[in-house]
Amino acid sequence: MAAYLSRDTPHGVTPEQVWAANGSNEVMLQLLQAFGGPGRVALSFAPTYSMYPEYARDSVTEWVVGHRESDFALDLDHAHDLVKEKQPSVVLLPSPNNPTGTALPLDAVTTLCEAAAGNEQSGIVVVDEAYGEFRRAGTPSALELLPRHRNLVVSRTMSKAFALAGARVGYLAAAPEICDAIRVVRLPYHLSAVTQATALAALRHAPELLGKVDELRAERDRTVDWLRGRGLTVADTDANFALFGTFPDRHAVWQGLLDRGVLIRETGPDGWLRVSIGTREEMQAFQEALTQVMEEQS
Amino acid sequence: MAAYLSRDTPHGVTPEQVWAANGSNEVMLQLLQAFGGPGRVALSFAPTYSMYPEYARDSVTEWVVGHRESDFALDLDHAHDLVKEKQPSVVLLPSPNNPTGTALPLDAVTTLCEAAAGNEQSGIVVVDEAYGEFRRAGTPSALELLPRHRNLVVSRTMSKAFALAGARVGYLAAAPEICDAIRVVRLPYHLSAVTQATALAALRHAPELLGKVDELRAERDRTVDWLRGRGLTVADTDANFALFGTFPDRHAVWQGLLDRGVLIRETGPDGWLRVSIGTREEMQAFQEALTQVMEEQS
Repeated sequence: MAAYLSRDTPHGVTPEQVWAANGSNEVMLQLLQAFGGPGRVALSFAPTYSMYPEYARDSVTEWVVGHRESDFALDLDHAHDLVKEKQPSVVLLPSPNNPTGTALPLDAVTTLCEAAAGNEQSGIVVVDEAYGEFRRAGTPSALELLPRHRNLVVSRTMSKAFALAGARVGYLAAAPEICDAIRVVRLPYHLSAVTQATALAALRHAPELLGKVDELRAERDRTVDWLRGRGLTVADTDANFALFGTFPDRHAVWQGLLDRGVLIRETGPDGWLRVSIGTREEMQAFQEALTQVMEEQS
Repeated sequence: MAAYLSRDTPHGVTPEQVWAANGSNEVMLQLLQAFGGPGRVALSFAPTYSMYPEYARDSVTEWVVGHRESDFALDLDHAHDLVKEKQPSVVLLPSPNNPTGTALPLDAVTTLCEAAAGNEQSGIVVVDEAYGEFRRAGTPSALELLPRHRNLVVSRTMSKAFALAGARVGYLAAAPEICDAIRVVRLPYHLSAVTQATALAALRHAPELLGKVDELRAERDRTVDWLRGRGLTVADTDANFALFGTFPDRHAVWQGLLDRGVLIRETGPDGWLRVSIGTREEMQAFQEALTQVMEEQS
């Protein structure tokens, strides 16, 4: 995994910087168990991934949530102030964000890492790159910042770009001291021999498994253009989905699509819908169905 | 798994009564997450499995430990009083116990289930049968008591009798309501498709995988007899190991065995050593080495 991650940073990643667990679910829970806990705070910015408050609850960590701008970008001044005010032990920053697709600029990561490190009790900053492999050309990975910030964690998963969700392999890169801290709370032998063998096989076949990523990114960008061409608002997306809207009655649109055999996600802020990017044929079916639904409801 | 467990109880076990996770480690942690937590107590009786206090710590549950008798049996009056006094949310009772091998009589399980159920806030009783398949003829499984006690949990693992530790498959049988409570805290998709396939394959081949269990039990009983014949004290054991002693300097005995190529465990109360049961040849090597060490040190 270190070699795989090294493709995304000129500084490289060493095996001592890598930790793997049963899905990024478990990676996140272990981070909260190691760095959160009673009397401590985990912080993120809504709308964001719905599981974060559950990791906080499961680790008895107080959950504090700030807000994002109307275009779902991070308001860096607001975020910085909240890190200083709430003194979080863990800051959770998905990039690209789920369900909005919004990537985080590296200067924002740096600002928040420095803010968390400067707190009375130093906190860690977790950049959740579950969808990182789908980012657009020119969008950097937070892996580039690892040499600069000892409190930075970058998490990844094999569930998305590798299309290997059934194997439950999540992992992170961070300073070796952070990996050591997780060893204190991880269950013994937490990652089975079978899972390890599956992950190693997937890494050996990474070019084939990741072969669809470029196609999907192109299809994603075409879908965003098409939706905007229809007069819809679409959040800038570096993920394998697009959040679009807004609709006075999003459930009716969702239902209309389902009635035409197209299943998308009714998620995100009110009025918005999220479509996962599929094959060219699937996206054409989506476009035809949405055209019909919008004509019907106009 | 329900079919496999049904072999050990005339009442049978249904799929709704079964829950599986990544090793009985994770099963135990999930039980503590669901039923323990801040302000709650987990109770067991020492000497016992060294991981229990870690599950309690990881779930922010207060850890209380009573004591066992000098032969490592449970003092049922003491245990009952402690359940009433400490009002535990979770009582952890390994049977056979690790590292002593001591099995728990069913009437003890019933007494403690009733005591925990009658507390102001009803608690659960977890009988940890990780080594359950090695129990001697006539030692019943707590699975038999499931219909009587809605607060009883019986946990098992594929790591021991199935010799499949690398697959990390633990599981439990309990009332369906208890399985539902675990679903609240379990991480989504916690058990990978690969792990599920591995467990199903192991169950299909259970007769072959469990084929060594009978040989091992016979070898265990022979080893206990031999140790007692040498004048040593051996705890009655229903597990795949035997705790024997006592030695004024157990470390010297352990080192003497290791010097002769025999590695056992320096664990349990002071003065005791634990030997895992292997093949006939391995146990003969153990006996020869121990004979030499004891002669040397006498």
